[in-house]
Amino acid sequence: MAGGKDRITDAAEKLFAASGFHGVSMRMVAEAASVGLGTLTHHFASKEALLESVVLRRSAALSCAQLNAIRSLDETGLDALLKAFVESYLQLIESGDEGWRSYTRLIAVFAMDPAWSQLLTREFDGLGREMIARLQIEVVGLNQDAAVHAYSNLVSLVMGLFASNGVLDQFSDGRLSSQRLRDNVTSLIAFAAGGIRALR
Amino acid sequence: MAGGKDRITDAAEKLFAASGFHGVSMRMVAEAASVGLGTLTHHFASKEALLESVVLRRSAALSCAQLNAIRSLDETGLDALLKAFVESYLQLIESGDEGWRSYTRLIAVFAMDPAWSQLLTREFDGLGREMIARLQIEVVGLNQDAAVHAYSNLVSLVMGLFASNGVLDQFSDGRLSSQRLRDNVTSLIAFAAGGIRALR
Repeated sequence: MAGGKDRITDAAEKLFAASGFHGVSMRMVAEAASVGLGTLTHHFASKEALLESVVLRRSAALSCAQLNAIRSLDETGLDALLKAFVESYLQLIESGDEGWRSYTRLIAVFAMDPAWSQLLTREFDGLGREMIARLQIEVVGLNQDAAVHAYSNLVSLVMGLFASNGVLDQFSDGRLSSQRLRDNVTSLIAFAAGGIRALR
Repeated sequence: MAGGKDRITDAAEKLFAASGFHGVSMRMVAEAASVGLGTLTHHFASKEALLESVVLRRSAALSCAQLNAIRSLDETGLDALLKAFVESYLQLIESGDEGWRSYTRLIAVFAMDPAWSQLLTREFDGLGREMIARLQIEVVGLNQDAAVHAYSNLVSLVMGLFASNGVLDQFSDGRLSSQRLRDNVTSLIAFAAGGIRALR
């Protein structure tokens, strides 16, 4: 069936994001994708293979988009680097493809599961190494370990921002919203830049 | 049965942390706690009630410990405030009670699920308000919205640190480890302080 594999991956992505890995059965995926269980298992031999495909599809696209953004920068400076890193992700989420939000929740949860985080580790390795090298170029006096700490903290901040923990809504009497990502990116970049400079 | 309720909550905590809400059945909890299904449903009418009890038990203890730590500070200054906030949590995790690690993974995942994050919102409301007020006292010129951003970012950093995303291990050739929490707290506090000051 044309597009069958993509439709299965789309359906699985939504289900995994809503119910977690253990809450989803192959039968549920087949039903949501309107394919028979035979077609599903023809494309994906196991639920693990399906989840791997769901995560890798967007991880490859995201890490490419972020690498492109930081490599094609025409300004120097820490703020410009952080902006390129965060905004290339934001643009994908804002592209109107709801799947990017599901994916973001999925990897936020994944990153905390040792059994799955290796998949992300591999997929984002090149991006991480390039960011760490560039952080050291942009911030004079930032040693290698400090740059690794800086990058780890940046990842925590970006995950927290995009996965929307709700803290902004709760304590601002409605003035701020964790859903208005673009409004919050400016503040995140200022915070991250200040934090990274403090690690020199 | 004496201690039955606590034993059930302990067993459920481990199972939820390992397999997520949907991956755990009441029968699995009963087996792991060595109680009958009747005893389990006598204490907890539903899986939702059980998860609520698991999360609230430690959330109440954690938010109390953090509030006590920031209220009993005998020094002023942003770094001392952040240290009290982070180290009171670290002390619980280091207490040797493995449950605190399960709980941490659990709330890191929870915070991203709108259906459950309200539970955390309620439990940590007092702590959040007090931290936001104190951040404004310690950092002259930090307005209310900037203080809310600061606190939201601090929460993302602490969750990232304690849930151990593995970035430190991956990029430091073994020199850093996301498991060595105490080593990483010093760097996190410096980063957070620099980030918060940059929001003035």
